[in-house]
Amino acid sequence: MTHSVAILGASGYTGAELVRLIATHPELEIAALTADRKAGQPMGAVFPHLRHLDLPMLTTVEEVDFDAIDLVFCALPHGLSQAIVKTLPDSVKVVDLGADFRLRDPKDYEFWYKRPHDAPELQPSAVYGLTEFYRDDIKGARLVAGTGCNAATVQFALRPLISAGVIGLDDIVCDLKNGITGAGRSLKENMLFAERSTNVTTYSFGGTHRHLGEFDQEFSKLAGREVKIRFTPSLVPVNRGILATAYVSGDAEAIHAAFTEAYAAEPFIELLPLGQMPQMADITGSNFCHIGVAADRVSGYAMVTATLDNLCKGSSGQALQNANLMLGLDETEGLMMAPVFP
Amino acid sequence: MTHSVAILGASGYTGAELVRLIATHPELEIAALTADRKAGQPMGAVFPHLRHLDLPMLTTVEEVDFDAIDLVFCALPHGLSQAIVKTLPDSVKVVDLGADFRLRDPKDYEFWYKRPHDAPELQPSAVYGLTEFYRDDIKGARLVAGTGCNAATVQFALRPLISAGVIGLDDIVCDLKNGITGAGRSLKENMLFAERSTNVTTYSFGGTHRHLGEFDQEFSKLAGREVKIRFTPSLVPVNRGILATAYVSGDAEAIHAAFTEAYAAEPFIELLPLGQMPQMADITGSNFCHIGVAADRVSGYAMVTATLDNLCKGSSGQALQNANLMLGLDETEGLMMAPVFP
Amino acid sequence: MTHSVAILGASGYTGAELVRLIATHPELEIAALTADRKAGQPMGAVFPHLRHLDLPMLTTVEEVDFDAIDLVFCALPHGLSQAIVKTLPDSVKVVDLGADFRLRDPKDYEFWYKRPHDAPELQPSAVYGLTEFYRDDIKGARLVAGTGCNAATVQFALRPLISAGVIGLDDIVCDLKNGITGAGRSLKENMLFAERSTNVTTYSFGGTHRHLGEFDQEFSKLAGREVKIRFTPSLVPVNRGILATAYVSGDAEAIHAAFTEAYAAEPFIELLPLGQMPQMADITGSNFCHIGVAADRVSGYAMVTATLDNLCKGSSGQALQNANLMLGLDETEGLMMAPVFP
Amino acid sequence: MTHSVAILGASGYTGAELVRLIATHPELEIAALTADRKAGQPMGAVFPHLRHLDLPMLTTVEEVDFDAIDLVFCALPHGLSQAIVKTLPDSVKVVDLGADFRLRDPKDYEFWYKRPHDAPELQPSAVYGLTEFYRDDIKGARLVAGTGCNAATVQFALRPLISAGVIGLDDIVCDLKNGITGAGRSLKENMLFAERSTNVTTYSFGGTHRHLGEFDQEFSKLAGREVKIRFTPSLVPVNRGILATAYVSGDAEAIHAAFTEAYAAEPFIELLPLGQMPQMADITGSNFCHIGVAADRVSGYAMVTATLDNLCKGSSGQALQNANLMLGLDETEGLMMAPVFP
Repeated sequence: MTHSVAILGASGYTGAELVRLIATHPELEIAALTADRKAGQPMGAVFPHLRHLDLPMLTTVEEVDFDAIDLVFCALPHGLSQAIVKTLPDSVKVVDLGADFRLRDPKDYEFWYKRPHDAPELQPSAVYGLTEFYRDDIKGARLVAGTGCNAATVQFALRPLISAGVIGLDDIVCDLKNGITGAGRSLKENMLFAERSTNVTTYSFGGTHRHLGEFDQEFSKLAGREVKIRFTPSLVPVNRGILATAYVSGDAEAIHAAFTEAYAAEPFIELLPLGQMPQMADITGSNFCHIGVAADRVSGYAMVTATLDNLCKGSSGQALQNANLMLGLDETEGLMMAPVFP
Repeated sequence: MTHSVAILGASGYTGAELVRLIATHPELEIAALTADRKAGQPMGAVFPHLRHLDLPMLTTVEEVDFDAIDLVFCALPHGLSQAIVKTLPDSVKVVDLGADFRLRDPKDYEFWYKRPHDAPELQPSAVYGLTEFYRDDIKGARLVAGTGCNAATVQFALRPLISAGVIGLDDIVCDLKNGITGAGRSLKENMLFAERSTNVTTYSFGGTHRHLGEFDQEFSKLAGREVKIRFTPSLVPVNRGILATAYVSGDAEAIHAAFTEAYAAEPFIELLPLGQMPQMADITGSNFCHIGVAADRVSGYAMVTATLDNLCKGSSGQALQNANLMLGLDETEGLMMAPVFP
Repeated sequence: MTHSVAILGASGYTGAELVRLIATHPELEIAALTADRKAGQPMGAVFPHLRHLDLPMLTTVEEVDFDAIDLVFCALPHGLSQAIVKTLPDSVKVVDLGADFRLRDPKDYEFWYKRPHDAPELQPSAVYGLTEFYRDDIKGARLVAGTGCNAATVQFALRPLISAGVIGLDDIVCDLKNGITGAGRSLKENMLFAERSTNVTTYSFGGTHRHLGEFDQEFSKLAGREVKIRFTPSLVPVNRGILATAYVSGDAEAIHAAFTEAYAAEPFIELLPLGQMPQMADITGSNFCHIGVAADRVSGYAMVTATLDNLCKGSSGQALQNANLMLGLDETEGLMMAPVFP
Repeated sequence: MTHSVAILGASGYTGAELVRLIATHPELEIAALTADRKAGQPMGAVFPHLRHLDLPMLTTVEEVDFDAIDLVFCALPHGLSQAIVKTLPDSVKVVDLGADFRLRDPKDYEFWYKRPHDAPELQPSAVYGLTEFYRDDIKGARLVAGTGCNAATVQFALRPLISAGVIGLDDIVCDLKNGITGAGRSLKENMLFAERSTNVTTYSFGGTHRHLGEFDQEFSKLAGREVKIRFTPSLVPVNRGILATAYVSGDAEAIHAAFTEAYAAEPFIELLPLGQMPQMADITGSNFCHIGVAADRVSGYAMVTATLDNLCKGSSGQALQNANLMLGLDETEGLMMAPVFP
């Protein structure tokens, strides 16, 4: 049986990535694609790499017949899903790729996103979309809030360690290297090829990045106490990919064992042998996450590195993984393509 | 029914690309992978992006039991397939990704490759592997010679025009922009990141590139007279992709019509509307080829641009497309994944 | 004696490049820097790579005291110099880096730039700024019109050959590979890192690029008859650099000899030995132009390749070279820095 | 008065960078260039970007007449300077760009470089070449040991803070992003463009990088007690540039004040206003180092970021800065060129 899906915000990179993934998914059919400024254009004009596909024309959200839709992917700019989701029929399942429903507490939302939430009544029902850790909740959810792409990467690197109690909670430092597509398709001087191609820039530094809201929420919940990590991302001249380097106190072997335990059955998480580190190019274009652990020469400390494709496993791939669960399909459907290397 | 395949030369980029494609192919099973220096290693050690797959260990060619193999992909360095292919059981079908069986005339081989051919007796039986133009022959072939990646791109841009007689044959100029993986994984100073990343270099210029042997053979056969194009490639700092720009005499509308006719039913060839040109990033990681046509301001002249992924449609994707045909499978099986953009 | 200069349009890349070059020029002093939206900011805020320099604050053009200025560099968007230049005191010399005064015939300007010229009375007095060919005129000029960066590259590759009569005039094809900074700092989706970094795109194809106005004017003047070349540029993922490949009819040795003759005494033109081709990375950040010649396998044809840095020799370096001449300084002052490789 | 210099190991990137810098230095003359495998070739054949210069032919070290040389730059692979330096006449000053004389204690050398030192008698007389902190010693030195490029960057970020006692010494974490040219011109698969261009890889992780020998030596000396930082570099797809991110405990304002004090008179160190962070592209091709400081949201913690060009300020620029001092010249001679951006 085929399920009908709509993608709202299909003219951005995560929208296009959803189309790429669904293109070879045997049980999903794209019934509607929306865009704002680009409504009225064929998808192949906006994204010529998709021109071989038979896709619906881009329309406005208002033009979509949601009664014919089983599941909606919201790939909208932050802040826009709130208003739209509350207008959708209850029968429509929703996977939101934006930030609108990630934080349980509306005060946290307001703190990190500098605006009050428009649909606070929906927030309690939203399930946090980190599949590997919320799988059962996601299966039964109507609304799943996709995680931040950085947030996903760092949580893959730290959650099992906090749960297992094998690392210190007060001295976690996480330095993240971030591909450019994480910034989306917005027009800014510092996103031009000329200004990024030979550049590395630290941004949202010193604990100001919005994904810290997710870390605080999730890590504190896991630990049963407040956990505040130090976290700073840097932009590197790569299209796709996040590589997070976590500096922690703890025993490398115990850390590796905790990962082995947590990820043994996970189809998309690859734990490298102790003492090996993953590299970003090995996950490009795929839904896989590679993780490595090594001891530090300074006794009592270790490092964890995790890498994934921000547009796929960090966003649209995660969204599809969740949609599969919500629709009762095999979780890996449409997601087992191997990374593109080189 | 599943078919067993072997990949000889699996430690190079085209070998890894074959594994990537076959990983999600429903009817092929990789039974053997060989490498020379790297025999004895797991494939995931040589190519960590493939570590999630359950693959046979790399072995030497001698260790392969070819009786259990239905089809062999030879992804060996030029010159090595000749000796190996003639030792294989007749029951094994062969797709050669190298240059050994592309040229019908052993003298042409000797001219372009500067060495006599080791298995000239096999050359007449080899079918030239440009699927779209040799489909029927490939279906019944035992040995298919994959084309050069540049050769494929330029032929997609010119063959229908020569066949239809809509361009002049004596003033064809083809300037080709070439991604770096076309040079394979060999270690040369000028292939280092440091020396390529901000560089464009014209190479094998002035008609010295070996793929001219294929052009001369194929275009002259098509035209029924000698055709010698002028052809020069330049290396551009991109991993995957070839973009060929052909400057021809002829009428742009007639050219576009000839393409429309030739490619109407082709699943992997996308002809753009007249006056639009394709770009390299729109085919990355896929088996698609995009083609554009435009008139020149100088009356009587036109341009044709074709772009494809050298590792996929230009090499391993083409090989799999041919293998599908040889094994009686749907030609597009395992090859319909959308390009990875951005 | 130090000369005072102003740079109008200092917030663009060519403006910043002028500041870079003048920073170590012993006889020029930057007295004014203007910008439009960014007036009021320090230059080091707009371009932090210049923060070590003691520079005047960015102002509007209106705030500049032109009586204290010896020479003005206009690095303004096309179309804006016209109005400003005619308001400047006669005592101020002007080097325009834009397109406003490149074409002698106002009708040509209107054809290529789709608007009538605002200061046609100034056009006859403007000297075309290709230093190596207009050196004497430039020395005495009040207004010098810098060439297009593509236009400079292609002219270095073709002018001596047309003058010497060693190539055919009716079958010249020039395929140009173009770094991204040639597009300036303007905000367009297709200039984002994500959309350019693995991409090659043919643009302004088929004879629609505005620099053809310069080619037509200059080549026809040189030849004493109409010359119309076929010319198409492609964007490659490199910040700086143009590599032009010209396909011509003619004898490679005669072509090489014509270059030897023309460029023997030129400080910035490096002619490679016959049969060698230059590469883009060898001129980055410098005022040098490298040129190579090779025969084609098709008898009677040859190739010429020229490469230079579009921001330097193609624009701001050329401008400074011309300013040196106009101010009676050594032409090479401030311009002999070696290329930055790798 | 002109001084004669020789560059041993001129066929590597740091050798070429020395030539680039000296090319416009008014008081140095290159009298000899040596290479091993490439002896006998003109420098312009090995590095065509230098072909406009009138340079001596590459020779073997044995062919150099050291009596005519005032100062030698040793840009040799690690381990080779030791044997050569002890054979040079005492009259020749030496700047070693390699690792041979960086560590005072031969046991440290042996620990980090896995071999005994060949000239331990010279080690005590070698001055550590971090100009800004050893200026007076360098002026009178015969042998100066250039620092590691990573080592320089991190020391610029931490030395004034350790000296001023404004940061904790037991919880310093330094995550470094490293351009590819730091690996030199050696041929390895993982240095190929294809394997680096979309890749970020953590290497020498967990405290195994050799530059830790320099940190241990220098930071412990400064602090008067053992200091062991945690340090891990990652390769990013950029040719030139290091960006070091140090996570420290301490007050951001006190840290910024310590830098202000330490670097006020330094010509090449640019301290950004508190709360701003530098980016790699702003120092490319120059001898400048940009430093930024910000508080962390976690009380009591701060971040410091420093960036410089590994081939210039991190290696050859530092070497020239030291040579200027050793020869009694202005320290900044030949080094004030502005960064190349974009």
